[in-house]
Amino acid sequence: MTKENQQIVLAKRPEGMPTHENFTYEDVEIKSPQKGEVVVRSLYISVDPYMRGRMSDQKSYTQPFPLNETINGTVVGEVVESEDDQLSVGDKVTGFLGWRYYNTTPASQVRKIDGEQAPLSAYLGVLGMTGLTAYFGLLDIGEPKEGETVVVSGAAGAVGMIVGQIAKLKGAHVVGIAGSDEKVNYITEELGFDAGINYKTVDDIQEALSGLCPNGVDVYFDNVGGEISDAVLNLLNSFARIPLCGAISSYNRTDGDLGPRVQTKLLKSRAKLQAFIVGDYADRFGEGVQDLAKWLSEGKLKYEETITDGFENIPDAFFGLFQGKNLGKQLVKIADPKY
Amino acid sequence: MTKENQQIVLAKRPEGMPTHENFTYEDVEIKSPQKGEVVVRSLYISVDPYMRGRMSDQKSYTQPFPLNETINGTVVGEVVESEDDQLSVGDKVTGFLGWRYYNTTPASQVRKIDGEQAPLSAYLGVLGMTGLTAYFGLLDIGEPKEGETVVVSGAAGAVGMIVGQIAKLKGAHVVGIAGSDEKVNYITEELGFDAGINYKTVDDIQEALSGLCPNGVDVYFDNVGGEISDAVLNLLNSFARIPLCGAISSYNRTDGDLGPRVQTKLLKSRAKLQAFIVGDYADRFGEGVQDLAKWLSEGKLKYEETITDGFENIPDAFFGLFQGKNLGKQLVKIADPKY
Repeated sequence: MTKENQQIVLAKRPEGMPTHENFTYEDVEIKSPQKGEVVVRSLYISVDPYMRGRMSDQKSYTQPFPLNETINGTVVGEVVESEDDQLSVGDKVTGFLGWRYYNTTPASQVRKIDGEQAPLSAYLGVLGMTGLTAYFGLLDIGEPKEGETVVVSGAAGAVGMIVGQIAKLKGAHVVGIAGSDEKVNYITEELGFDAGINYKTVDDIQEALSGLCPNGVDVYFDNVGGEISDAVLNLLNSFARIPLCGAISSYNRTDGDLGPRVQTKLLKSRAKLQAFIVGDYADRFGEGVQDLAKWLSEGKLKYEETITDGFENIPDAFFGLFQGKNLGKQLVKIADPKY
Repeated sequence: MTKENQQIVLAKRPEGMPTHENFTYEDVEIKSPQKGEVVVRSLYISVDPYMRGRMSDQKSYTQPFPLNETINGTVVGEVVESEDDQLSVGDKVTGFLGWRYYNTTPASQVRKIDGEQAPLSAYLGVLGMTGLTAYFGLLDIGEPKEGETVVVSGAAGAVGMIVGQIAKLKGAHVVGIAGSDEKVNYITEELGFDAGINYKTVDDIQEALSGLCPNGVDVYFDNVGGEISDAVLNLLNSFARIPLCGAISSYNRTDGDLGPRVQTKLLKSRAKLQAFIVGDYADRFGEGVQDLAKWLSEGKLKYEETITDGFENIPDAFFGLFQGKNLGKQLVKIADPKY
């Protein structure tokens, strides 16, 4: 096999919006696998908003990406060389790997996936991190009950679109907030959300939302933070639950991110605002994947992917997340399977 | 008995800090008790920060006080006339009653208390609403574990001083934030807090707190909101819990109460910010009073009261809450018991 490989390293920490300056492409060799290791050829690489946090050098739930080292994220690939008993050449796997054409990794660090159950790319979305994020955040923290109102921001994103559909499966009235008419049409017409708001064109988010949530808001699944969340927080019902999943509007801000303080708003409704990451639910992933795969196979759960082509375009696909360019899960396709 | 009575009504809703303009004194008669009713002579009346919220005309967890009607709050009094089988003249009771010398009320609306177990005034504080607020907020939402760090704001107030002492009983490292050196001395020297900060004289709250919380903050019991909470939220450990009890710094603000948004801070630590009111735990009050009374009788729990004399001074005692004049529970003494 070829020894040609390439990786993308974090060359400089971004201040504000990341640019090409922050990344460097390096030619490297494919490391030969030792006993218990495999070489995985990347087929799809996931870019996700949370990665922006790791590019900064701040205390957070994960270590910052080290400077001048390869950026890591979730990858789907195929085994092209194996020194492990459990995995064979041709097996499809997913795991936390580097932005490289080829990763040499302990076999225990990747999980075999079944391309018959769902397309390979789904394991980076609806059956992977973003689907599980939606599942556990909504059901474990949000706990939507039949007839309640669930609002989700970033509603046409990889997490948001699954949140809204699960909320509908649970009998809730679901309103999504997204950033284009196309996205709003998609979530209402294709995914069955009860209503949607294009926050970029509406005059007053709170007023619009208030009209679409005549019974107030019981669950607010928050992917975005910022002014959208400021507005939703004025409409909370008593004992509202807010799974706090992301704050994409804030990740690239350098101005202090000022807004109305939330304390009095939460006090008025005795609301709960709880941040989480999907990793906190690692011991329950099996349960989540099972439900998601079942709904998928029954046609009760749809998903969308925005697939950018080519390893060289990973940074652009990542930048696009912050411009709202993606509908659903943003992936980068690296190659077609050989096996 | 005399038919002379007086009540204080809400004459005008406050904008910003309340003043004497907002209240009117009215001479009224004592209503004759019907079957099942009693007349309660007020001995102590409680003034509490949360009442400011009810003076505004905004959606909240309680109805706003109606204009031109008597303000209600917790009162300790004695029964001076009874048309009820369960309560006798001379019985001491507590309940949610009007700012009046005499209240005529269904006996079922008040609860008999035991003046031998603790001083009557304690039933408006450590064994009443504020003690129970501290108890349930800290233990049910904060869940402090041995060796963890608990920070409490409004630490020398009626709720805060009990929070810190219970946290000490649970083996936590406890740091209080208060508004005078006298208060800081009181919580550290009398109540056994590990450390205290006078937020009015310290240069940088976050820096000072960081020095006193070398292992970060696991539980932040928040009574105040505003800039103090902005600072504490920068020091949260993973899975920190924030029982949100009050936001006294915001209640009289008319400027929009802007501050740094909390979402990214909470995300970094996967923290939970949960607002509550003590009424949510009504079915567990017995359990709370039992523990509090036990700790009190064992000398493990101390409390302080600031007692203003005279019915006519109720509004001033209330205003004083927002100037930080009180150490511990602010009460107004209306009369000595006759029985």
